[in-house]
Amino acid sequence: MPDLRIALAQINTCVGDIAGNTALIVAACRSAHERGAHLVLLPEMTITGYPIEDLALRESFQRAAERAVQRIAAQLDSEGLGDLTVVLGTLGVATSGRPFNQAVVITGGEVTARYNKHHLPNYGVFDERRIFAAGDDRCVIEVHGRRIGVVICEDIWADGGPVAQMDDAGIDLLAVLNGSPFEEGKGHVRTELAQRRAQELTAPVAYVNLWGGQDDLVFDGHSFVVGTDGTVLASAPGFDDALLTWDLGDDAEPAPASALAAPATDDEQVYRACVTGLRDYVTKNGFTSVVLGLSGGIDSALTAAIAADAIDGGNVVGVSMPSTFSSEHSKDDAADLAKRLGADYRVQPIATMVDAFQDQLALEGVAEENLQARVRGVILMAISNREGHLVIAPGNKSELATGYATIYDAGSIGGFAPLKDVDKSRVWDLARWRNAHAEARGETPPIPANSIDKAPSAELRPGQTDQDSLPPYDVLDEVLDAYVEHAEGRAELLARGFDEAVVDTVLSLVDRAEWKRRQYPPGPKVTALAFGRDRRLPITSRWRERAE
Amino acid sequence: MPDLRIALAQINTCVGDIAGNTALIVAACRSAHERGAHLVLLPEMTITGYPIEDLALRESFQRAAERAVQRIAAQLDSEGLGDLTVVLGTLGVATSGRPFNQAVVITGGEVTARYNKHHLPNYGVFDERRIFAAGDDRCVIEVHGRRIGVVICEDIWADGGPVAQMDDAGIDLLAVLNGSPFEEGKGHVRTELAQRRAQELTAPVAYVNLWGGQDDLVFDGHSFVVGTDGTVLASAPGFDDALLTWDLGDDAEPAPASALAAPATDDEQVYRACVTGLRDYVTKNGFTSVVLGLSGGIDSALTAAIAADAIDGGNVVGVSMPSTFSSEHSKDDAADLAKRLGADYRVQPIATMVDAFQDQLALEGVAEENLQARVRGVILMAISNREGHLVIAPGNKSELATGYATIYDAGSIGGFAPLKDVDKSRVWDLARWRNAHAEARGETPPIPANSIDKAPSAELRPGQTDQDSLPPYDVLDEVLDAYVEHAEGRAELLARGFDEAVVDTVLSLVDRAEWKRRQYPPGPKVTALAFGRDRRLPITSRWRERAE
Repeated sequence: MPDLRIALAQINTCVGDIAGNTALIVAACRSAHERGAHLVLLPEMTITGYPIEDLALRESFQRAAERAVQRIAAQLDSEGLGDLTVVLGTLGVATSGRPFNQAVVITGGEVTARYNKHHLPNYGVFDERRIFAAGDDRCVIEVHGRRIGVVICEDIWADGGPVAQMDDAGIDLLAVLNGSPFEEGKGHVRTELAQRRAQELTAPVAYVNLWGGQDDLVFDGHSFVVGTDGTVLASAPGFDDALLTWDLGDDAEPAPASALAAPATDDEQVYRACVTGLRDYVTKNGFTSVVLGLSGGIDSALTAAIAADAIDGGNVVGVSMPSTFSSEHSKDDAADLAKRLGADYRVQPIATMVDAFQDQLALEGVAEENLQARVRGVILMAISNREGHLVIAPGNKSELATGYATIYDAGSIGGFAPLKDVDKSRVWDLARWRNAHAEARGETPPIPANSIDKAPSAELRPGQTDQDSLPPYDVLDEVLDAYVEHAEGRAELLARGFDEAVVDTVLSLVDRAEWKRRQYPPGPKVTALAFGRDRRLPITSRWRERAE
Repeated sequence: MPDLRIALAQINTCVGDIAGNTALIVAACRSAHERGAHLVLLPEMTITGYPIEDLALRESFQRAAERAVQRIAAQLDSEGLGDLTVVLGTLGVATSGRPFNQAVVITGGEVTARYNKHHLPNYGVFDERRIFAAGDDRCVIEVHGRRIGVVICEDIWADGGPVAQMDDAGIDLLAVLNGSPFEEGKGHVRTELAQRRAQELTAPVAYVNLWGGQDDLVFDGHSFVVGTDGTVLASAPGFDDALLTWDLGDDAEPAPASALAAPATDDEQVYRACVTGLRDYVTKNGFTSVVLGLSGGIDSALTAAIAADAIDGGNVVGVSMPSTFSSEHSKDDAADLAKRLGADYRVQPIATMVDAFQDQLALEGVAEENLQARVRGVILMAISNREGHLVIAPGNKSELATGYATIYDAGSIGGFAPLKDVDKSRVWDLARWRNAHAEARGETPPIPANSIDKAPSAELRPGQTDQDSLPPYDVLDEVLDAYVEHAEGRAELLARGFDEAVVDTVLSLVDRAEWKRRQYPPGPKVTALAFGRDRRLPITSRWRERAE
């Protein structure tokens, strides 16, 4: 019997689903008990889901969260789990009436301690100072004679505060409850941070993170324990349920290989983030199926493959909507894709509907191109209305950034945009990764090679290609990355050697596309900076990057 | 010659338009000088526009703002206005690299003082802690031997801070630079606050506010000066340019009646806020005309009247798009409205286009109703693409709150929704106010009486009225006001005597409409709580108000 067995419960909560989250918490405590754990750690705001935004300000919701805490304490005790110490996240309320981002400690059928998060992140996707009051007390609990410090997420990212308060507390372990969203490459940063804190405190750090999709955020899990010397002692896989157990003994033991999750490549992680974001958006909102337009191009092909991985190909409706400008290969590629995915495939030519508008409106040029695109949008919404599928939008980050899209077309309407934060270059990378992943497992690659290899085109006029209007995607995506993700100005871009004409084209497109971007449905955030949640810019702005 | 003549320059800046804002500032200084002023006060963030959101974080933008300050100082001096003391708002940068919300004092061709806002609002529409570092120094300047304290907006709303620091500074005047958005009934609150501060400091308070529309915010101006005894000594009208001058003498004089702007009713103020929001969204984004569907109903009639007041009826394109379910009176009322407004009126029946879809899709029920509505959306977008008008959306707050709307229809597509924060009951009030206002001036009332008096209907099936699906609007709007604006829970609503079935219907509609609300274009914020900017709720949430 170890001194103290700790279980990190990496679960997938849903915002506002207090009953569902409660059931997940109780189930995790039962499993932890069966596996001999004495202490169970759950993620940030376990009961309420995270992030709850202004829902935190509703008194009826605050009351419901507190009732759930009391019920969990009573239920665990009544099931004979009263000896278990459970640390979980919830919504507290200060005497001022302002909510706290709170951790509660439950043991023996009651709440024995409460900790209020000190450091409230208020940047990027986080708005916690808007909502929460900050705590200023530290929280150290004793379990089986061991002293455990409890903090929440951002508390370990900031120097000072509750971690510094632990300096003289003689803790044996720091427990960190997290709601840390996925971001490409962030895993290493988290681990290095925890290693530093473990060394500072001369105590292991147990880092438990939630996983799952919540609107445009995806949480990846990847919970872990690091020892005082910085060694990773145990780790859970990403994008999945896990109950990671670890024993706090007298001496840190080297971890058996079985305790460590295998690392995934960046492409694999981004792909899984997209799958998770889509699946949870669909299922948590009560849908069971999706519908999208299949053009034969790479964006809709990758989107459909992600959807098939998320909710099974049989729940994906793919609609080919050829116009008079659609090539034969487009129709063939769409059909081939649907067959590989096992999707419900339909063909709905748009000519008679476009003609009905044109008889009345006689549009030309871009207006005519957009008409075709919007007729497709109306068809998808009609099928959605009739059959109950969620419409998903295959538009990618490069076209969203530059406004190279028809608003209200099949690429931008609907409830969720799986590629909203994936630039075009990455769309190809992910498609190739997915196919290679299938091949490595002896499965049929889901995406037709032709969809990956051919020149991208909206096929809204004869011979059209994306590069009639945009710089080559590899260059475009590099400039976008610098301008959008890293906020570099025109002067910095030119100093880095980008062509002046290309820079001015891209900047002008991005600066003018803000209004179009607001029309897009949410999509999973997979990079440092995604449109929508963490890039707040005025729509009406005359600021343009110019020569200084 | 007075001791000190102060000019409050109430101007309409645009976010990011550094050149345009600079021109407004210089013009205001010239006018102030001509009127004998020694001190000119300009609104918060004059050079950059307000609110600039994450644009503040761009280094290239920060540099451009600072260059503009230096240029203004040099230009005023070169024009012989170097003796003038000018206090204006801009974007400063802390040594940490974080931006400040800053006031600069310019005199003699240079910047002689800088003040950084202490209190950074981070609630409702404000996200200033996300962007700015907080200042902690006070700023007192001397002009003609008089001591002037300078603070910015939220600084006077919070107790303590820079206003408290003025206690022992012996100031003769407190100058407050504001970017305070319009909200129904807020005028009194501002005045009472300034009166309290004036009494605390035993010094008059000069409150200068910007005016104009900026995306979904509308700033109303209403600048004023209050004396130490709380008397309003001078005031500017709302929703207009103004240069309000006031003399700081040895003794406060009673204000001549001519120095005080006439108060407007709440309906008039909300109407003017809607006109301002629409006009500035259109013109600041480079449009000169708008297009909207005219159904003969009250929402599109009021929206068209607002548009005509904003940009002249000749720049409004109204399209009647009758279906087989449209009544004769609807077509007549739409034509009558367009004639009264002098709008460009067109009729585009939708039957042949709807039939083309129905030949292929054979939709029934709600799917068929939505199809008709979306065909209208496609027509408006096509006309917009062809002729360059901005599409505006007549949807009101009640339908937006309850999801009683077809997404991507003529009521919800486009760039701006003038009634987004106006509930249906208020729509009728504003229409009646506008007609009465015209009658009082001997003009033709713009809105046909029939559009005001008839029962509201979407006319998407025979005999349909809104009340087939919704409670009566007067009841609905009362419940919405309590639930949405005042965050009351189900228990509180029942305790106030609302019918249980009505409450449950309304709450269920509101809780499920979040995703639809995200599809709406911005609209002017006119009440305490508008959808969009200041109500941040998760889309994916299983929280429902239930019996506790």
